[in-house]
Amino acid sequence: MSKGTVSRSVIRRLPRYYRFLGELEKQGLIRISSRELSERMGLTASQIRQDFNCFGGFGQQGYGYNVKELHEKIGEILGVNMASPTIMIGAGNLGKAIAAHIDFNKRGFKLIGIFDSNPELEGMQIGSLEVKGTAELEQFCKSSKPEAAVLCIPKPAAAEVANLLVSYGISAFWNFSHYDLKLAHANAVVENVHLGDSLMTLSYGLKKLEDENK
Amino acid sequence: MSKGTVSRSVIRRLPRYYRFLGELEKQGLIRISSRELSERMGLTASQIRQDFNCFGGFGQQGYGYNVKELHEKIGEILGVNMASPTIMIGAGNLGKAIAAHIDFNKRGFKLIGIFDSNPELEGMQIGSLEVKGTAELEQFCKSSKPEAAVLCIPKPAAAEVANLLVSYGISAFWNFSHYDLKLAHANAVVENVHLGDSLMTLSYGLKKLEDENK
Repeated sequence: MSKGTVSRSVIRRLPRYYRFLGELEKQGLIRISSRELSERMGLTASQIRQDFNCFGGFGQQGYGYNVKELHEKIGEILGVNMASPTIMIGAGNLGKAIAAHIDFNKRGFKLIGIFDSNPELEGMQIGSLEVKGTAELEQFCKSSKPEAAVLCIPKPAAAEVANLLVSYGISAFWNFSHYDLKLAHANAVVENVHLGDSLMTLSYGLKKLEDENK
Repeated sequence: MSKGTVSRSVIRRLPRYYRFLGELEKQGLIRISSRELSERMGLTASQIRQDFNCFGGFGQQGYGYNVKELHEKIGEILGVNMASPTIMIGAGNLGKAIAAHIDFNKRGFKLIGIFDSNPELEGMQIGSLEVKGTAELEQFCKSSKPEAAVLCIPKPAAAEVANLLVSYGISAFWNFSHYDLKLAHANAVVENVHLGDSLMTLSYGLKKLEDENK
């Protein structure tokens, strides 16, 4: 459906569209104009039309978009139903929270294994999965063929783990480790999460607010 | 130092500059050119110069930037040393992970209280803090005057909590709740975290990779 390369910033907006449309659908809305959608999302209507045109348009201008249909189409572009087999490395606080908090199934992935190098965590139950030791990792990857990995390990440990996982055929990484995976593995699909960056952006906003009120 | 309004996308890049420069400083690097910095960060040199010009420039062209000085200046703009008193609402899996995993002190905030409405979590130790019941929230806010709040609660609970916190004088929110806080409180400084959006972006990337390899 997409013609050529769609810019990174358009792609970054797709999950947000998907989320908003899902809510509107839940609320029972049948159709929405790009103007209404833009007002709810804090974008301009022309931005929305431009974004959607990257994927062929999706609707008739003037008549508005069918909410359910648009939600499904964007979901399809994002691959939310792919259920790509996925493993998590690191079952500490962060790993546990991510595994418990995120609905992988609704976002294109299926969590099929959790691994930790700490023997004390082995056998711990997280949702329906039991934490395995990293000694089992290679065999597991050979038999279950995961395509994606969530890295919830500290930066110093990440380089070695990433090399292994790439050699086991994993090509997509949800990377909480702060290790620059893309530098060593240019072909990997990597989504880095830096929660600290988000917090510093908030700090900037608060500082600015306080400066204005001085 | 900043003149007028700096665009949101420039501000979003500041924490990343801050992070990279911190690493370079740790590695013992004294000076860096915008070209070298751009190569390491995957930006163009002109982008970096444009970004820095929003804050008055920072360095002499041709001679490069002093890494330590630039790191400090960007940190100052971000307010990383403000230690704004901050509370967390929600001590479930996600709250615990955020409290344990994020170094608030290095990012402009100081976590001074954690609250949860679940009586079973009351008294639980998270780092140096003990989880308090929400009955204590008002009194705590009056006496300790937190300026920021981390919302690690589900969406349905967030509207009421946000209203309360705003009425208690809290003006900045690190919002993991998916509730659209900005809609109800336009003056609040809000940083929304949607981890699911990040995961869907990864899904898009993996789908594209698989389509290309078909």
